[in-house]
Amino acid sequence: MTAAFSDMAGFRSLLATQPDQDTEAAHAAQERNSQLTKPPAALGRLEDLAIWYAGWRGTARPSIERPQVIVFAANHGVAARGVSAFPPEVTEQMVLNFQHGGAAINQLSDTFGAKLDVHALSLDAPTADFTQGPAMSEAELVEALLSGWTAVDADTDLLVTGEMGIGNTTSAAALATALFGGDARDWTGRGTGVDDAGLQTKPRVVAEGLALHGGTGDGLEILRRLGGRELAAMAGAMARARSLRIPVLLDGFICCAAAACLEKTVTGSLDHCVASHLSAEGAHGRMLDELGKEPLLSLGLRLGEASGAALSIGVLKAAVACLSGMATFAEAGVSDS
Amino acid sequence: MTAAFSDMAGFRSLLATQPDQDTEAAHAAQERNSQLTKPPAALGRLEDLAIWYAGWRGTARPSIERPQVIVFAANHGVAARGVSAFPPEVTEQMVLNFQHGGAAINQLSDTFGAKLDVHALSLDAPTADFTQGPAMSEAELVEALLSGWTAVDADTDLLVTGEMGIGNTTSAAALATALFGGDARDWTGRGTGVDDAGLQTKPRVVAEGLALHGGTGDGLEILRRLGGRELAAMAGAMARARSLRIPVLLDGFICCAAAACLEKTVTGSLDHCVASHLSAEGAHGRMLDELGKEPLLSLGLRLGEASGAALSIGVLKAAVACLSGMATFAEAGVSDS
Repeated sequence: MTAAFSDMAGFRSLLATQPDQDTEAAHAAQERNSQLTKPPAALGRLEDLAIWYAGWRGTARPSIERPQVIVFAANHGVAARGVSAFPPEVTEQMVLNFQHGGAAINQLSDTFGAKLDVHALSLDAPTADFTQGPAMSEAELVEALLSGWTAVDADTDLLVTGEMGIGNTTSAAALATALFGGDARDWTGRGTGVDDAGLQTKPRVVAEGLALHGGTGDGLEILRRLGGRELAAMAGAMARARSLRIPVLLDGFICCAAAACLEKTVTGSLDHCVASHLSAEGAHGRMLDELGKEPLLSLGLRLGEASGAALSIGVLKAAVACLSGMATFAEAGVSDS
Repeated sequence: MTAAFSDMAGFRSLLATQPDQDTEAAHAAQERNSQLTKPPAALGRLEDLAIWYAGWRGTARPSIERPQVIVFAANHGVAARGVSAFPPEVTEQMVLNFQHGGAAINQLSDTFGAKLDVHALSLDAPTADFTQGPAMSEAELVEALLSGWTAVDADTDLLVTGEMGIGNTTSAAALATALFGGDARDWTGRGTGVDDAGLQTKPRVVAEGLALHGGTGDGLEILRRLGGRELAAMAGAMARARSLRIPVLLDGFICCAAAACLEKTVTGSLDHCVASHLSAEGAHGRMLDELGKEPLLSLGLRLGEASGAALSIGVLKAAVACLSGMATFAEAGVSDS
């Protein structure tokens, strides 16, 4: 099988020619929604969500049968700079934990009937420390994008991507600073719970990275220089989902940083994505504002590994079930005013 | 079988002698939570929720297997005053819709694996218009409380109560005004979507009710004078759940008004209840503040019929699954710092 793209230019042209929502299906869903046995707009955001989902799936009465959660794991050279509360070995230990069913994302995927796939990306070869040079070569970036692209099941009807990678809130903060501007301190937080010393170190490391790579190229080039394999893989998976018109629930700060690289490469690349939750990582709210996305949930999660997005699968399932399963006023013989 | 109570005094003494949380189980759950493979507090409110649930169920590793949703329907004399966007016949029409599986609550209950029971309470005999006299006699109130009490399955492990009753946001607003004070306008909103004329009428009707019944008696007496059968039944079901240590997810404005009558009769009566969502009915936020409850979700729902609470079953299930199913650092061989 030929790869969907073999270099950054190929991935860029692919992003520029992605399919859009089926507006006819979205209108049909909206029309159906207006006839359901409830006061107008009484289901609030569930109604908007279901209509959005229907548009992407191309049918006024969709269903969610095969949600897929994919967690990508990778290691970061920058972790050696003391930016995390946990040692780098934890990335691999947590991959084993995912494989044995012991992590939060296992429980969350099970609760909402989602398939969980875990992809460990060259854990023994961390990306380069971005304060010394680009995190990845073009070949490494393309390989990571392809890992994500090929990880998406073609028959999935809802995609959730997540990550595990000690040091990756620092990489995400560097991406955010490069993509959206502002001071490194605006985009750095405690991540998994770094101590005060680490919290001082993170913006310094980000600022070093920005000094070396800032203002160079589009979102994809920024992803190559400051990102990591799991971030690139999430971006690749989101792009693949778009090519198949599969809606995506975005997770927290790191997932959204990966998504933002797509948006800053081709505007509109995230139209098939909804923000699942507002994380407790301080800069996440600002990033969602930059992306123009309003989160569904705000429950103080700050775990990553797709946890917030998996939690919101239930909300989206419920929304779609109401749109597709409820009776209309006419069907139920209920007076509509 | 002898009824659990036969008059208001009996119900009051029952409320005063309800069981409390098992603090030993709650502590064991807290201890377990602190050892799970995630950074401390990384699951945010899910952690508090799971520990709260564990305490009520008396085990550090609980599970939710048999959630029960109960919708009580009743008619209100006050509906004749033009306070709703829908005619009173809709109460019965919607009961049929529930029974045939066509309403939002059917879809939501199915989505989260909950059993749905629907109880229509004397639909052909609306409660009295509370601007003319008490909505219910003591016998009627006690009968409605018992309808709720007996509707709860003893083997349920999570209870959600909801309502259907044209005119019942007006009844709930009257209860709130009597229980918490303030002006009738502070507690009235559009309900199912009443027009501007109706929105003028509602506070006037509430004020008339308050003029007749205000300042008389405790929460239970206020419930008798200004409430309705479905409100009393929800209160009875919540009390029964407490007697069985079954946690409850509170729905929107009307459900919380019923709950507030218990709290204002015996303080602490709602310790086994969590606020599932913040409704778009304007006064709901204020009521939750009065009850000291922070909502889990805020998605603009304003449907009633237990919809917001049913939606949050998924969140609670997920929380409990993480507490009970995740591996500890020691079990998974993950470095905890």
